Amino acid sequence: MITLSSYIADQWVKGTGKTTLLLNSSTEAAVAEASSEGVDFVRAVNHARAAGGPALRALSFADRGAILKNMSDVMVAHRDELLNLAMDNGGNTRSDGKFDVDGASATLSAYAELCKGLGDARYLVDGEAITLGRSSRLTGQHVLVSRHGVAVHINAFNFPSWGMAEKAACCIAAGMPFITKPATATALVAWRVMQLWIESGALPAGSAQFVAGGVGNLLDLMGPQDVLAFTGSSDTAVKLRGHQRVLSKGVHVNVEADSLNVAVAGPDVEQGTPVYDLFLKDVVKEMTQKTGQKCTAIRRILIPKEKAQAFAEDLADRLSHTKVGNPAVDDVTMGPVSTAQQKKDVLAGMQRLMGVAKVLTGGTDVGKLLGAEAGKGFFVMPTLLMANDSNNAGAVHEHEVFGPVATVLAYDTSEQVGVLAARGEGGLVASVYSDDKQFSQDVFFALAPHHGRVVVGSEKSAGQAIPPGTVMPSLVHGGPGRAGGGEELGGTRGMMLYMQRTALQGFGPWVESVASGGKRV
Amino acid sequence: MITLSSYIADQWVKGTGKTTLLLNSSTEAAVAEASSEGVDFVRAVNHARAAGGPALRALSFADRGAILKNMSDVMVAHRDELLNLAMDNGGNTRSDGKFDVDGASATLSAYAELCKGLGDARYLVDGEAITLGRSSRLTGQHVLVSRHGVAVHINAFNFPSWGMAEKAACCIAAGMPFITKPATATALVAWRVMQLWIESGALPAGSAQFVAGGVGNLLDLMGPQDVLAFTGSSDTAVKLRGHQRVLSKGVHVNVEADSLNVAVAGPDVEQGTPVYDLFLKDVVKEMTQKTGQKCTAIRRILIPKEKAQAFAEDLADRLSHTKVGNPAVDDVTMGPVSTAQQKKDVLAGMQRLMGVAKVLTGGTDVGKLLGAEAGKGFFVMPTLLMANDSNNAGAVHEHEVFGPVATVLAYDTSEQVGVLAARGEGGLVASVYSDDKQFSQDVFFALAPHHGRVVVGSEKSAGQAIPPGTVMPSLVHGGPGRAGGGEELGGTRGMMLYMQRTALQGFGPWVESVASGGKRV
Repeated sequence: MITLSSYIADQWVKGTGKTTLLLNSSTEAAVAEASSEGVDFVRAVNHARAAGGPALRALSFADRGAILKNMSDVMVAHRDELLNLAMDNGGNTRSDGKFDVDGASATLSAYAELCKGLGDARYLVDGEAITLGRSSRLTGQHVLVSRHGVAVHINAFNFPSWGMAEKAACCIAAGMPFITKPATATALVAWRVMQLWIESGALPAGSAQFVAGGVGNLLDLMGPQDVLAFTGSSDTAVKLRGHQRVLSKGVHVNVEADSLNVAVAGPDVEQGTPVYDLFLKDVVKEMTQKTGQKCTAIRRILIPKEKAQAFAEDLADRLSHTKVGNPAVDDVTMGPVSTAQQKKDVLAGMQRLMGVAKVLTGGTDVGKLLGAEAGKGFFVMPTLLMANDSNNAGAVHEHEVFGPVATVLAYDTSEQVGVLAARGEGGLVASVYSDDKQFSQDVFFALAPHHGRVVVGSEKSAGQAIPPGTVMPSLVHGGPGRAGGGEELGGTRGMMLYMQRTALQGFGPWVESVASGGKRV
Repeated sequence: MITLSSYIADQWVKGTGKTTLLLNSSTEAAVAEASSEGVDFVRAVNHARAAGGPALRALSFADRGAILKNMSDVMVAHRDELLNLAMDNGGNTRSDGKFDVDGASATLSAYAELCKGLGDARYLVDGEAITLGRSSRLTGQHVLVSRHGVAVHINAFNFPSWGMAEKAACCIAAGMPFITKPATATALVAWRVMQLWIESGALPAGSAQFVAGGVGNLLDLMGPQDVLAFTGSSDTAVKLRGHQRVLSKGVHVNVEADSLNVAVAGPDVEQGTPVYDLFLKDVVKEMTQKTGQKCTAIRRILIPKEKAQAFAEDLADRLSHTKVGNPAVDDVTMGPVSTAQQKKDVLAGMQRLMGVAKVLTGGTDVGKLLGAEAGKGFFVMPTLLMANDSNNAGAVHEHEVFGPVATVLAYDTSEQVGVLAARGEGGLVASVYSDDKQFSQDVFFALAPHHGRVVVGSEKSAGQAIPPGTVMPSLVHGGPGRAGGGEELGGTRGMMLYMQRTALQGFGPWVESVASGGKRV
C-alpha cells in the first residue's frame, strides 16, 4: 500500500500516528494511506514566507508563466499514470479522470500563456492614472502587488487535480507561495501530481508545499498577509471563515461552496430541435459526469409546465441507459461516489427530495451494476425526480444532493424562473437553453445577480457549446451566497485574491515612472 | 432636547424605551437622544428589497447620478446648519466639521459625475469579450449587475457625514438600497443629513433608511444578496464578520477598521526644505485634525536615526502650540475627543505606549484649555512619544490609540522601514516624504502589500499635496489585515461591493448584443 507523504520545507516527510485509508470506491480495497500527524506546520509557514514568497516575487510574470508551463507539461507527460490513479481512487471513470487531470493541465497552461503575455513586469497596474486636484501635478495610480504571506489551499475531494491546479496557477502567477491540502479520501492523484511538479524542478524552494492528511494547527498560524482559499461544503466554509484566528488577523478568504445549479429550458424549446438535444445532452452529462460530484453539476431543471412531463421522460430515459459500475470495466460510463459517507449523504438527500418530489428514474435502491462485487462499492443510481409543486419544494431549492441526482421543476413564466432560481440562495452556474433571444436576455438578467456564471445554449452555439459544468480559466468561477461569495480564475481576476491593490498617490511624472515598470491591465 | 428618529419604510419613526444621550463633548451637556427600540427591522429589510431595490435598478446610472447630485446639493445648501450641529455634538472644531461635511458632499458629487459618465446603461460590462473554444462562435463576457438585496451600513462615530455618504454614494450608484446606522454618540449630523436627503425628494421609496440607535435584530435578517459594510474597530468587525447569520448566508461583507498608519521621512530630508515642511505640516494635521480620531491619522512616524531627535523636537514644538479647548471658542484648533469612553481609551492607550516610549509633548495630564469649564469635557492633549527601541516597541506597532497621539520610531535602513511598517499588520495609508526617487520607489514597494494607499510627498508635489488622511473618492480606501481587508471608493471599484460579477457564456453575436446594452469599464 502506498503511504502518502507531505512535502514540507522542500522535503517529503511521512506523518506519524494513525493513518486515514484511501479506498478504491468500487471494491472498497485500500489503495493508500495518509497522515499529517507530526508535520511541522510552523516550519512550513515560515519557509513559505521566508523563501518561497521572495523567490516568486523576484520572478517576472513571464518567468512565473514558465513554471506553470512546466507544471502543465509534466502532467501531460504522465497523463496515463495519473488517469490510472484517478480510476483507482475516488470512483472515476477514465473519462472522469480526464476531466480532472486535463482540466488541471489546461488551466495551468492557460495561466502560463497569460503570464507570458504579462511579460517582464512583476506587478500589475490597474487602470489609468487619475488626476487629483486641479492640475496633473498630483496623480493617483492603482497598483497590484503580490501579498507577502502564504496561501493555504484546501481542496474538495471531487477534483484532486483540477482543484489543486487552478488555485496553484493563480497563486504562482500572482507571485505567492502556497501550502495545498487535498481532501484525504481522494488524495492519491493530488499527491502524485505534486511529486511531478516538484520533480520537474521548476518550482523555487518554498513556493509549493503539500499536506497529506489534516491541516493540524495550520489555521492558527495564519496572518494578515496570508490567503485562505477553500473549496468544499458550506458547513466547512462557515467554520473556516468563522475561525477566530482567520477573523482576528483579517486573513483574506475565498470560498467556493455549495450550489443548486439550475438548467432552464426556454418556452420555445421543442423536442427534436438542436437546442433540445443540447439541453438533454448537457443535463445528462452534468448529472452523471464524476457521478454528479461536481460543484457545477445541474441540480434543478426548470421546464415550461406544459412540456415538463415529456421532457422529464426523455431525460429519465437517457439516464436509465447509464452504465453504472466499476470503472475498471470498459463499458462503464458512471462509477460509484467517492466514499461511504458520500453515499450515505446522497441517499439521505434523495429521501429529503422524495418528500416533495416523485422519482422518475433511479432512486435509493441500487440497480444493475457492471463489474461490481455484491455489497461492495459506493454505488448510487442516476436519479431524476419531479417536484410535485415547484413553489413548495423547499428541499429541492435548499439541499444540494452531491451525487447523480436532479429534480425537474415545472414553471409558468419567465419571472417564475428568476424567483425559483433565486431560492437556491446563490449558485455557481446556471444554464439556459433557448433560441428566443428576448427570453434568454430576460432570464440572464434574472439569474445574473444569483450566479457567478450563466451559460446560454442555442441552436447557433450548439455545435461548439461547452457544457455548463466545465470551468473555464478565462471566466470567473464562484458565486454569491450559498456558493461562497468567492471568485477564482477569470484570467487576471483570479490573481487578485493573491495581490493587494494599493493606490499610489504623488507627483505625476514620478507616479508614471513607477507605473511604467508594471503591466497595465 | 432633540429626539432622533429612525427612517423606516419611508416614515420617520420614534424609538420606544430607554434612550441614549448624545452629548456636547466639551460641556457634557445632552444635545439629543436616540433609541431604535421598537423599530420594525423586518419591515425595513422587506421594504428595501421589495421597493427600493427594484426602483433603483430601473434607473440608469445617469439617473442614479442625478440622485447623488441632489444629495450633495442639499448638504451644500445647508452647510452652515450642519457645521453647527457638528460643533455641538462630537467635539468638532468648525474646521473638523467642514472636513466631515464637505468630504461627504464632495464624495457624493464625485460619484454623481462618475454616474453621469456611465450614462444610460443600468449594468456594467467588465473587460473585453473572451473567445472560448476554437472560433469566435462562442464567447464569454463578464457583466456586473446590481445585487438584489439590501445593504446595511454601520458607520463609525468619527465621520457621521462622510462615512455615511461615501457608502451611500457607491451603493446608490450600483443600484442597491441601503439601511444606514451611524454611531449613536455622534449621530446628530447624520440624522440631519438623512432628513435633508429625504426632504430633497430625490431618493426613490425604500432606497434609503436610517437607524437612530442600535441595530437590534437587523443582522439576523440578512440574506445571500445582502451586503454589510462596516467602519469601526477591529473588535466589532470580528463580531460582525463572525456573526452566524452573516457567515451562514454568505452575506457580502466589507470592513474598514483599525490602522497604525506610518509616515516616513526619507534619509535625504533636511530641516528647512520644502519636503520637510510638508512632512511637519502633514504629521501635525493628521495628529490633531478631528482630535486624531481618524482611521487614516498618522500613528507611527519613522525618521532616520541620526535625525530622529531633531525632527521629533520640531514636531513636538508645533504640537505644543495647538490650541485645545471648546470649539465654540474661535481660537481653538483642537476640540475634545468625542466621548468619555474615547477619552478613557486614549489615556489607557497612552499608558501602554509609555511602557516602551517617552513622552516628548502632551501626556495623560490635561494642560491649558480654552473656553472649557473645569472638570468638564473629554479633553486630551496632542501627545508625541518617542520609542526607546523601534524594534522592541510592541505596543506602538500593535495598539491604535484613537486620539491625537503618535510615536516617533528611529530607523537605520530602508529595509527596516518595510519591516517596521509591516508590524502594523495591515494599514489604510502610509505616507513617505522624500526627494530621493529611488528611496521612494523602494519604500513604496515595501509598503504596498501592507497598505491600501501610499502617499509620496516631495518638493515637486508639496505645493498641491493632499494630506494622506484625506480619502479620495477616485482612489480605493481600505487596507489588508488589521485594516479590515476591504475596499471602498476608488471610482467604479467602490461600486463592485454592491454588484455581482457574472460571466455570460454563449453565442458570440448574442453575447455582444447583451454587452452593448451595458457600459464597459
